Amino acid sequence: MPSEFQMIAEIFAPLAEGFPGALGLLDDAAVLTPRPGRDLIVTKDLMVAGVHFPADDPARLVGKKLLRVNLSDLAAMGAHPVGYLLGIALPENSDLAWLKAFAGGLAEDQAAFGITLVGGDTVATPGPVTVSLTAFGDVPAGEALTRSGAREGDQIMASGTIGDGVLGLGVASDDWGQLTETHRAYSLNRFQVPEPRLALGQRIRSLAHSAADVSDGLIADLGHIGSASGLGAVVQAVDVPLSDAARAALDIAGQSLLPDLLSGGDDYELVFTVAPGSVDQVLSLGHELGVRVTKIGRMVAGKGVQVLDDAGSPIVLPSGGYSHF
Amino acid sequence: MPSEFQMIAEIFAPLAEGFPGALGLLDDAAVLTPRPGRDLIVTKDLMVAGVHFPADDPARLVGKKLLRVNLSDLAAMGAHPVGYLLGIALPENSDLAWLKAFAGGLAEDQAAFGITLVGGDTVATPGPVTVSLTAFGDVPAGEALTRSGAREGDQIMASGTIGDGVLGLGVASDDWGQLTETHRAYSLNRFQVPEPRLALGQRIRSLAHSAADVSDGLIADLGHIGSASGLGAVVQAVDVPLSDAARAALDIAGQSLLPDLLSGGDDYELVFTVAPGSVDQVLSLGHELGVRVTKIGRMVAGKGVQVLDDAGSPIVLPSGGYSHF
Repeated sequence: MPSEFQMIAEIFAPLAEGFPGALGLLDDAAVLTPRPGRDLIVTKDLMVAGVHFPADDPARLVGKKLLRVNLSDLAAMGAHPVGYLLGIALPENSDLAWLKAFAGGLAEDQAAFGITLVGGDTVATPGPVTVSLTAFGDVPAGEALTRSGAREGDQIMASGTIGDGVLGLGVASDDWGQLTETHRAYSLNRFQVPEPRLALGQRIRSLAHSAADVSDGLIADLGHIGSASGLGAVVQAVDVPLSDAARAALDIAGQSLLPDLLSGGDDYELVFTVAPGSVDQVLSLGHELGVRVTKIGRMVAGKGVQVLDDAGSPIVLPSGGYSHF
Repeated sequence: MPSEFQMIAEIFAPLAEGFPGALGLLDDAAVLTPRPGRDLIVTKDLMVAGVHFPADDPARLVGKKLLRVNLSDLAAMGAHPVGYLLGIALPENSDLAWLKAFAGGLAEDQAAFGITLVGGDTVATPGPVTVSLTAFGDVPAGEALTRSGAREGDQIMASGTIGDGVLGLGVASDDWGQLTETHRAYSLNRFQVPEPRLALGQRIRSLAHSAADVSDGLIADLGHIGSASGLGAVVQAVDVPLSDAARAALDIAGQSLLPDLLSGGDDYELVFTVAPGSVDQVLSLGHELGVRVTKIGRMVAGKGVQVLDDAGSPIVLPSGGYSHF
């Protein structure tokens, strides 16, 4: 086990370079100087080996996913990344190579998404590797997107494709041997290295009435928007955007797989609601950003999320969404 | 295992009441609106059952200590508490009673220290209870106390008493049976429920050149100030403030215990440096706040921390300080 000071000096301090408030990671805390007229957005996600990622997953990918799931929370609020704190609980038998690869994944994504390590804590654990990240972002004051602003009649829109996360989880667990290697690799990559929709989140801030990221599953996260806004939601199953891999999986497993795709977690796409008159503008925006954006349903009076098939009949869904419990 | 939504609604949402940016803990992230002209101070500490606290410690005290060790980091920077994010990894067999007691400890200390829960994450783990807290504080822009500002000739001062943390750790491990029950209870309480020196930290902001909290041990944390400031430190052992319990332990174990007290962690006192001309003002401030403040040494050219006995001879110290590895 490397010493905490060795870890800081060799592995983490390089990730904090160029951020004066990180104080070289040598202080008790870090200093963030907010830009005038901005609100700070703060979010925290934990990942446990064997629960949120296989214990033998490449450490580089674990680092990337940890950062990306937090960036996805910032994206859902329309925020710009600022910095992050990192907490790591490491088993005694950990080696520097694991940590170096983990930090390598973080370094790649720091550069990709414009965010910097500012501090953290590293401790020992008799349990599995447990990583915790707190991400900071900012938005113009008062402009954070939330789950609670949806209005009756809003159109529901989703970015990217839905259901790849749970498919990738299956591939990671050696399911889906009948899928092609290409579709297996695509799904696994979507599960391991999700794409936080930061640019889209920032650009829809002035258009969307509400937004969430799809971490618990499309149905559950749309349900969160509904309950926070005091509304229900109706989704047309045929309109939910699916990847080629998910369509191939449906061909193999049959339509009974569809509820699993709509309820599975870890997609890290955005689901958001806009006034009907804003739909075209959002579609143009998606085109401009190179992000697929699809209209999938509408917000209605009432409560709960209903998914309708081609004939307009409700599809029975697993209760609730994806849960790590 | 209670569901995450049940935990949020029943246990955590009450801790976030009165903080609009917490969004009722129902959103992807929380919104902090910085006060104009203030820097934000951010810090994160993890605690693992069986490593940082005995697994059978009362949950209420675990909650209090987790919050207090983070508040101590804010105190070392001279910050005012603002809010915090909470991360919990819970074993599958956890029950609501543990969580309720844990949250009860947090609620007591939220009221005591003026800080509010704003968000977080709760996950399952096959390992021990692992808790992670990110605390936010603020200071007037540019006024954060750091470890790097010490000047040659500065007087070194410490709050409270030193060594009680490691003594309390011993008591928690059933050592120190020869101490009186009063001294055992005192030490255990110091270890389990440390006192973050927030008021002192805020008031010395304009007087101190550098500061740290004593989490790794007086010698190690003073060493951090020295290395961050490019200086050495000389401490007079006889001047280091000890509690009655620590003096009783020295009477029992002999002077060979002294280096352990000076190197033990978990005291959560402040160690800081001031110009010689400011010492009297700091002593008055301590008197006003009811916090013992003691002059224990001075910053010198060179590097490392030297502790001198009554005769002016160096005392041999365990290398480095307290480490959780």
